[in-house]
Amino acid sequence: MKAIDLSVGSGGKSMREFIERVVMKYINTDELRVLGDSAILNIDGQIAFTTDSFVINPIFFPGGDIGKLCVAGTVNDLVVAGAKPCFLSLSFIIEEGFPVEAIERILKSIRDTAIMAGVKIVTGDTKVVKKGEADGIYINTAGIGKVIKNINEIKEGDLVVITGSPGDHGVAIMVARGEFEFEGEVLSDCAPLTNLLPLWEMKGVKWMRDITRGGLASVLCEFGMENNFTVFINEEKIPFSPPVRGVSEILGIDPLYLPSEGKAVIVVSPDVKEEVIGYLKKNVDASADVIGEVRKKEKNFHAVLKTISGGYRILELLTGELLPRIC
Amino acid sequence: MKAIDLSVGSGGKSMREFIERVVMKYINTDELRVLGDSAILNIDGQIAFTTDSFVINPIFFPGGDIGKLCVAGTVNDLVVAGAKPCFLSLSFIIEEGFPVEAIERILKSIRDTAIMAGVKIVTGDTKVVKKGEADGIYINTAGIGKVIKNINEIKEGDLVVITGSPGDHGVAIMVARGEFEFEGEVLSDCAPLTNLLPLWEMKGVKWMRDITRGGLASVLCEFGMENNFTVFINEEKIPFSPPVRGVSEILGIDPLYLPSEGKAVIVVSPDVKEEVIGYLKKNVDASADVIGEVRKKEKNFHAVLKTISGGYRILELLTGELLPRIC
Repeated sequence: MKAIDLSVGSGGKSMREFIERVVMKYINTDELRVLGDSAILNIDGQIAFTTDSFVINPIFFPGGDIGKLCVAGTVNDLVVAGAKPCFLSLSFIIEEGFPVEAIERILKSIRDTAIMAGVKIVTGDTKVVKKGEADGIYINTAGIGKVIKNINEIKEGDLVVITGSPGDHGVAIMVARGEFEFEGEVLSDCAPLTNLLPLWEMKGVKWMRDITRGGLASVLCEFGMENNFTVFINEEKIPFSPPVRGVSEILGIDPLYLPSEGKAVIVVSPDVKEEVIGYLKKNVDASADVIGEVRKKEKNFHAVLKTISGGYRILELLTGELLPRIC
Repeated sequence: MKAIDLSVGSGGKSMREFIERVVMKYINTDELRVLGDSAILNIDGQIAFTTDSFVINPIFFPGGDIGKLCVAGTVNDLVVAGAKPCFLSLSFIIEEGFPVEAIERILKSIRDTAIMAGVKIVTGDTKVVKKGEADGIYINTAGIGKVIKNINEIKEGDLVVITGSPGDHGVAIMVARGEFEFEGEVLSDCAPLTNLLPLWEMKGVKWMRDITRGGLASVLCEFGMENNFTVFINEEKIPFSPPVRGVSEILGIDPLYLPSEGKAVIVVSPDVKEEVIGYLKKNVDASADVIGEVRKKEKNFHAVLKTISGGYRILELLTGELLPRIC
């Protein structure tokens, strides 16, 4: 088989062959081998459950592909919710004619990222639609994790930490789409954030969220909205990478809204600052830093930015759409 | 908002408004209200985990729609795996321009089916792709259930039971697509099978599978393959409905491969036959019946049909594709 045809989505012989000969070449867990309707799993205590569909275009991009992204994206939602990722489901919607070779590349990437993140793919589904009814391949993953975090009350004076430079995924995808000329390579930051898990063992670590579609600004606003505080951010401290700064300036894009796929915002109490930043710089990204602090709600502001020029700017959730099919 | 635009998939303000004003009008569980990255859930003991993507065409059909189907399909995978369905995730891939009114109809159906099945929708995702990059709406659901079944060894002489007439979903969809002229109405059998759960309390109930894309014949073959037996089925006993019989004859389709979305095959020991059939006829479908029995593996046959004319026919998994986008 060189290209996926409609029979692969039939629920019959071709689908079974596709799963046994293509999918299981890369993903061969005990649970998947059973090929039943559900995976039977053992997990005790509280669990976290999340899902994401991935429609990214292009499917392959510098620094990753839809396979790496679909594992990392769901893993990261579990990590920031305070859960150790354990199990993933994997569901494909494939356009008729999509090359099997491309699926194999994606599966290899899924396998490698799952190993890196310590999760098992235990159940899945495959649907095929006619040519023109999808654009290549769309993937859904759902994930189950074991909750490990303790609940710690957020207070005024808590610090806002970023785990590294935000926005690289957005710029990498724009460059990969050929939307403008750019000298040099920009890699997506797409990666599983499982190395943030040890932070949940520190008592002063209170809140985490990975930066995705809405960019850093949207995450900061979500924090403010959901916890009824205003965060004050010092723009100078945000460790944008040179390509993100450069591209934003040239195109007139606000880098605060550029998507990442491997960066997070963490809120911590001041007494664990050194410990958290030390851990992040050593194990995650040398540019991790404190970028602001939590203050009591001021008017209806969720997040306020002290700009490099010294002014203040009120941040809002991303309005409109900056980059369709970014994840 | 009358139609979905790309900004609804942005991860920013429009997406939040869509979730809060449209989705939560129908689905408003505590867990979803949190709008975090993952739902935090309490479940103890062994769990079952499953996923399915739904690409059915047409989206609305006699007897159901993609909303009813996406809940029932995942619920049924949990039920037949011996688990009480507890939690569902819900992920949309929407084509730009899709009417909000249609999404509301679908959400209403999702809500009603979830209530009927006793599951809670606790987490979700929304992606929007450009016009022409999908066909209306595709939905993924993943589900978590609590395992309630005991493991009982399958033996020669066990009976093969069907919970009702198979194939109605396939015929209803063909009629809805206008693929041929048909007098009268055929309803899809699309429904959650949660009323099969009490059967798992009976010691002699050993195996279940819902009939989906591959039809009754594929399920029978799967049983034979996975458990290393041959099932012998008496064609005369299969309770096909008159429209399924009629349409199959006219179109020359084998009704054994027509999809269902609310029927299952159950394997039970002979000593609980009366109890199981009694329960099914009273609570599920009056046409439920024993259609065959489990025998020791004969050659490499998974399932053998004794035809109405008295001959024998070896059944195989569905080959090729009968009906694309049937679920």
